[in-house]
Order: sequence, then C-alpha cells, then structure tokens
Amino acid sequence: MAREKLVVIGGDAAGMSAASKVRREDSGREILVFERSPHTSYSACGMPYYIGGVVEDVEPLIARSPQKFREKYRIDARIRHEVTEIDPKKARVRVADLEGKAERWESYDQLLIATGASPFCPSLPGADAEGIFGLSTLESGLRVRRALERLSPRRVVVVGGGYIGLEMAEAFIRLGLEVALVQHGPQVMGTLDPDMGKLLSDALREIGVALFLEEAATGFETREGKVRGVVTEQRTLPAELVLLGMGTRPNSALAEAAGIALGARKAIPVNPRQQTQLENIWAAGDCAESFHRVSRRPVHIALGTVANKQGTVAGINLAGGYATFPGVVGTAVSKICQYEVARTGLQETEIREIGLEAVSATITSKTRAGYYPGGGPVTVKLWAEKGSGRLLGGQIVGIEGAAKRIDVLATALHAELTIEQLIYLDLSYAPPYSPVWDPVQTAARQVLNKL
Amino acid sequence: MAREKLVVIGGDAAGMSAASKVRREDSGREILVFERSPHTSYSACGMPYYIGGVVEDVEPLIARSPQKFREKYRIDARIRHEVTEIDPKKARVRVADLEGKAERWESYDQLLIATGASPFCPSLPGADAEGIFGLSTLESGLRVRRALERLSPRRVVVVGGGYIGLEMAEAFIRLGLEVALVQHGPQVMGTLDPDMGKLLSDALREIGVALFLEEAATGFETREGKVRGVVTEQRTLPAELVLLGMGTRPNSALAEAAGIALGARKAIPVNPRQQTQLENIWAAGDCAESFHRVSRRPVHIALGTVANKQGTVAGINLAGGYATFPGVVGTAVSKICQYEVARTGLQETEIREIGLEAVSATITSKTRAGYYPGGGPVTVKLWAEKGSGRLLGGQIVGIEGAAKRIDVLATALHAELTIEQLIYLDLSYAPPYSPVWDPVQTAARQVLNKL
Repeated sequence: MAREKLVVIGGDAAGMSAASKVRREDSGREILVFERSPHTSYSACGMPYYIGGVVEDVEPLIARSPQKFREKYRIDARIRHEVTEIDPKKARVRVADLEGKAERWESYDQLLIATGASPFCPSLPGADAEGIFGLSTLESGLRVRRALERLSPRRVVVVGGGYIGLEMAEAFIRLGLEVALVQHGPQVMGTLDPDMGKLLSDALREIGVALFLEEAATGFETREGKVRGVVTEQRTLPAELVLLGMGTRPNSALAEAAGIALGARKAIPVNPRQQTQLENIWAAGDCAESFHRVSRRPVHIALGTVANKQGTVAGINLAGGYATFPGVVGTAVSKICQYEVARTGLQETEIREIGLEAVSATITSKTRAGYYPGGGPVTVKLWAEKGSGRLLGGQIVGIEGAAKRIDVLATALHAELTIEQLIYLDLSYAPPYSPVWDPVQTAARQVLNKL
Repeated sequence: MAREKLVVIGGDAAGMSAASKVRREDSGREILVFERSPHTSYSACGMPYYIGGVVEDVEPLIARSPQKFREKYRIDARIRHEVTEIDPKKARVRVADLEGKAERWESYDQLLIATGASPFCPSLPGADAEGIFGLSTLESGLRVRRALERLSPRRVVVVGGGYIGLEMAEAFIRLGLEVALVQHGPQVMGTLDPDMGKLLSDALREIGVALFLEEAATGFETREGKVRGVVTEQRTLPAELVLLGMGTRPNSALAEAAGIALGARKAIPVNPRQQTQLENIWAAGDCAESFHRVSRRPVHIALGTVANKQGTVAGINLAGGYATFPGVVGTAVSKICQYEVARTGLQETEIREIGLEAVSATITSKTRAGYYPGGGPVTVKLWAEKGSGRLLGGQIVGIEGAAKRIDVLATALHAELTIEQLIYLDLSYAPPYSPVWDPVQTAARQVLNKL
C-alpha cells in the first residue's frame, strides 16, 4: 500500500490516533488531515475543568499541535480546512480553506471520516442569542471561558443533566455562580437507573445546584440579542449565561450525502475493522457506530476512549495490518465535586427493552476498610441475567475512590463473567483501599442470593 | 444434613465466614468454633494502622465478637480454646481450655480446619528476648502497641521487606521513630520484579527508612533479656524494638499429625470445594493451599481476601450446597505513605521457573490526565506469553490512585484475556481519574509491540 495517499477528515482523537498509527507503521505514506477548527488532538473532556479554573491554562489540553504533527510525524495537518463534500466515485473530497474561503478537490486512495460529534442545539425561540453555548470542541470551551470574563454572569442555567451538564454545573459552582440545572427527564444522568440517579440528584443539591427535574426548556428569554433566562413549562429561570448539555449528535451529514446509510442515532455504521459500506472509506470516533458487547446492538457512544481505540484500529488497518475493534460495554465515569459516579453495561430500561430476564441488587459499602480514616460510602448496583447469572451491568455512586471500581465490572462484561465468577475474583485488598470484600463483590453476593 | 454437628478450628476470617454461611443456609445446625486467641473475626490487616496510630481504637478492627456470634448467629464461638489433636478415626478433636487448662474430647460430624498462619520466627541467638515481635493476630498487634508504650523505643529494626515489614516500617516512621529495615534479598517486596522493587526501595528511603539490602539477620543483641540490636553479617543495628516480617507459615501441624499429607509450603491441600484428603474434614484460609490460575500450580497465599472466599465456599458446601473456589491469581496491594504498590499474576522468576516464553514492557504514565491537578506518576509493568499473547502478570508502583488499577489486571487474568483484549477494554475515563488511555492499557500497547 506504500505511497498510497490517506486523507483524514477531522484532527482530534480518532483522526490523529489513526494518522499517527499509520505513520508509525508506514514511514512513506502520504497523510493529509483536514480539521476545520484551529486545533488538533486536544482533550475535549478537559473543557469543564479549564472553564471551572481547575486547570489554569489551555495549552496542556492540547496533546499535539499541527506543527508537532508536521515536524515530528510528517503528517500534513491542515487546520481551518473543512471538507464540504465526499465524492466516493472519483475518490476525492472537496475542501474549503476557511481562512482563504477557496474550495478545491483533493484526491485520496483511502479516506477516514473522523468528523466527531456536535452538541445538540434545539431550535427553540431565542436559541441564537448571545450567551448560549454548547460544549464539544476546544474552541467552544474557549468561547465559554471568554464569555464568563466578558459577561460576568451571576446566574447560569445548565440545560441537560448528562455528563457535560453535570461537570459544567460543578465548574460554575466552583466559580461561585448561582447555578440552576433543567432536565426534562425525572432524573439527572439518564444512563443510570432512577434509584442511582437520585443519589446523584441529592449530591448536586448538596453542592448548591438548583435542580429542576421533569421540566423541558421551551425557549430563551432574551434582551438586545443577549440571553436573559431559560423558559420552561413551569417558569422562567433568569440567567446571563446558558450551557446546553443536551447530548451530542454525530457529524455524519457528509457521510450521508456521500451515500452511506446511517445507523444508530445517525452514526456511521462500520465493520469491526472500521470500514464503512463504501470502498476505501473508513470511519472512527464520535461520528461512528460502536457494537455494544452486552446488548449485541449497534450504539452511538461519543467518548474519547472509544475514539482513540477506533482510531488506532483504523490506523492499523489503513497501514496494511489487521485489527478489529471488539466493541464497547458502555462504560462512563464522572466526578462532581466530591462525588464520583460511574456506570457500565446495560441499565434497567435497556434490559427491559431487550427483553432479558434479570435481577439486580444495590448495596452500600465503604471505599476503605470501615476503621480506616478518610473512607466514605459507595453504593453499587449490579444487574445479572436470570438463569445464566451473566453480569449485565453496574452502576456506582460514592465518594473518592468509588468510581474507578467500574473498570472491574467493565472487564468482567468484556469477558462475559457471571456473578459467581465476579464474587471469587482475586481483587486487591488493603485497608486504605477497600473493605476485605470489595464493594462490587459485596453487591455481587447480594445478586447471587436473588438469582 | 440437618442436626449434624460442625466443629470449626479457628475463629477468624475463614472459620467465621464458613460458620456464618452455614448458619444462614441451615438454621438448625449445631456450630461450635474453637479459637485459641481471645478474639474472633478481626482485621489482622488493620494491625499496622492501629500500631501506627492511623486507627485510634482497636474495637473497630473486630468485625464480630464471640458474644455477637452467639447471640445473633447462634454460633458457639469459644475463645481461649485450643484444639490440640484431631482424631479423624473417631471423628473428634481434643480441646484445651486455655483458661481452665482442662482438656476434653469433642465429637464432630464435619470438621473445618481454619487455623490460619503464623509469622515465621527464625531460631536465631537472642530471638526470645523481650522486644522482638511477629505480627499476625490481633493479640500480637496489641502486644506491639503495648510494647511501644512500655519500652518507648527510639530505634526500631524491621527484619524482612514483605508487606507486613513495609507497612510496619511506615507505621514506625509515622510514630517518629528511627527505622531500619533488613532484607536478606537484594530488594524489598520479593513478589515484584527487581526493577519494580527498586522503585519501592527508593520510596522507602525517601520516607526515611534506612534500608540494608542483601543482609541476613544472624542474631539479636540483648541485655538483661531485652533486645538491644539486630546482628547482620555486616553490622549490628541498634534497636529497642524489633519487628519480624519474614513471612508466614501455615498452622498445619494439627492437620499433619492427623494424617494429612501437606502440600505447597506445608499448607493443607484441598479440592475446589475445600475438602481435605480425610473424610468430613475441610480446610480454608491461611492454613490451606490455593490453586494458582496462571501457573496452574498449588500455592500458599495467606491473605484475608482468599480466606474469606475459601471460608464462604466451605460454608456453602458444609451447608449442603455446592460451590467451588476457582483459585487465585496472586493479587496483592499495599500503601507505604504516599506510595502505592500492587501486583498480580506471575513475576519474572515464576515465569522463568515454569518455562514460559514471555515478554514484558514497563511504562510510566500518570494517575490523572496530564493537565489535571493532583496526579502523579504511575509505573506499570506487564508480562505476556509469546505466541498466545495471554496476559501473565502485572505490577504497579505509583502515587495515590495508582494501585487499585491492579484489579483490572486481576480480572483479566481470571478471564485469561490477551494483551490485545486488554488494550481494547472499555475502561472508564475522565480527567480526574486517568489519562484517556489508562496506564494499564498504555503498558499493554507497549507489550503488544514486542509480542
């Protein structure tokens, strides 16, 4: 494949993981990356901490700059270049130089679509007012931080109680602002079961977030083009700054226009090697589907970990090697002040929807041995399939030291372990880290009693 | 099996886990436990923290007292009773009441040997002097704490650099004492490879422990029956208190005298249901063998986690149910001041001894995203089998947040995952917890390059 030309659309996690992998495996390959923002390879997940002032400077959030890619990896990463069309028949893409405004065609032998995802922005009255922000790219994070300085808001409303919404609520609390959070559903963090979500709601209220659950935002109050409040069915919440955390949508329009039939939540379907339905066109990261190993269904999960892995797999294959992405189990983790929350596998609604017969148990244990100072509560909920005893999912809410335990459950899900196997795992124990039965095993013991 | 009489020798983790499980499953069973110490169900692992003053009181270290077992579980737990002989032919044990000194025979239908392990005390000149202590039972911990008050030592020598030795060195440092540690081998923590052990030696020196490696203790200097120093081949290290952390030996003499052929390191061989070779005699915990799932060999690992699990399995079977203990993978973790150390699976010497062809890689990463405050270095070393790519073992040394990651590796070992499967595990990520590639996955990526 040497001397073939690889074009990558998108210069963040998936695109640059792939490009770097190809370079390492094939020193002669021509690699061209188009990125519409001014940045490559940055940590979007770090944005809430930059905005909240936990992280002072933005530079450390950038893993590698376009210059570094050019000089160290001989990857031609062109920022402020947007691909506006894919022409699969002629194996070329149309590229707009966002500075010069010129457009031209660029040919490829292999094309990787790594266009990411964008925050969902509802078309509500007033949604285009100044002071309303989504959060996904480094640029969008910089915009929020600049707006905080410029607008000096006293009151902020976060619309949406997913990870981004909650982490941004924490960031605004850190900055000493009055924070309200509006969530159309009955709980924050919809990827948790209601009982576990409630623990998190309580935690949010404790840190000072005013929660308005089961209220949908219906519009925005504006004055002179600036946002002044969020209108819900019940009230208007005053705000000088609004953060939309209503989930993301894959940037898949380019792929769709090129003739790719979109899949789960409009993400780009790929095979385990990250190939799309079209010849020589690959996709990876937040724009692509993943295979869920527990539900055995395609899903769209926009997370940096998945993007890096899919990008690596695509890169190995694009370099002429062979790798497959084995899929996800739906793991996620977040930290909201002193509270930690994590989940993996299937939650109750998914289990019901698929039609699995399952039992669950919820236990509260400690992050350290009971007598060891500095420990605190950790609540673990596990789901297992009746009959087989196979672990289906787990959720954890607790204080420091609680959440990373989810990785044991994620590994167990990958390996399709049963609850009984989970109980007898040789997990580490010392008083500063855990009770003698790790909380995930204590939960498993309770589940076994019900199986 | 109802109304059968169960006799348990030993009232700590394994014995009481079994007894409690039997009670839960069979409310009518007669359960009699003989424990030679004055305590039941205590956390031996908590001793270094009690001695070092991290834990103020001893009561929280006792999970359940004999009174509680009697009243809540109707388990007749007789403390200060020592079983001095097992007579398997007549299905009876001889019991000495250590208070009354009387001995009598007690019959059983089923017998569980859960006699634990004892610290190894070498027969060196002066070893019986006052001020020389091993550490295993709650009693032994209380003795050390009382000795610290009574003898007011300024200088302490720890002999042996295993977990107990290191945790006690930390405890003495916390108390402001001058601490020297003598280790006959070239490194502390012999269950680590030398390169990883060196990181820990450096950490110990940093917290103020004077390390004397490759020096065997040959005796003790004493004056008027009190210890005054530890004599090695090279020097005499002055000490008013000496702590022996030279490993443990299974308390298996009773079993051997009853006709059981002992196994690995004189531990009691058991089948996966925890049955010994003798009819109606079971064994669990620190006195018993375990099956090592990676080396496929019997091993002796004296740890509370293993004891609790083996006790639970024995209890289920003794209650008429069916359970098997799937074995261990050799997981252990410890905390030495701000340093965390953990290991699982096989280390280099074991891999060589078994004759496996293997490759390893060692990486240093961060416990949190690089830009997130409060993170620090974590070094991960992984071993994998050539050809199959199967994970064989892992070792971790780092600062807070490093060590519990060993549980992912332990779970992967249980499930016999390959390095490639480890790389693509859907582990949790958020900046406060991890870089986007978890350090264990970064290490796995390096190993894959060498496979």
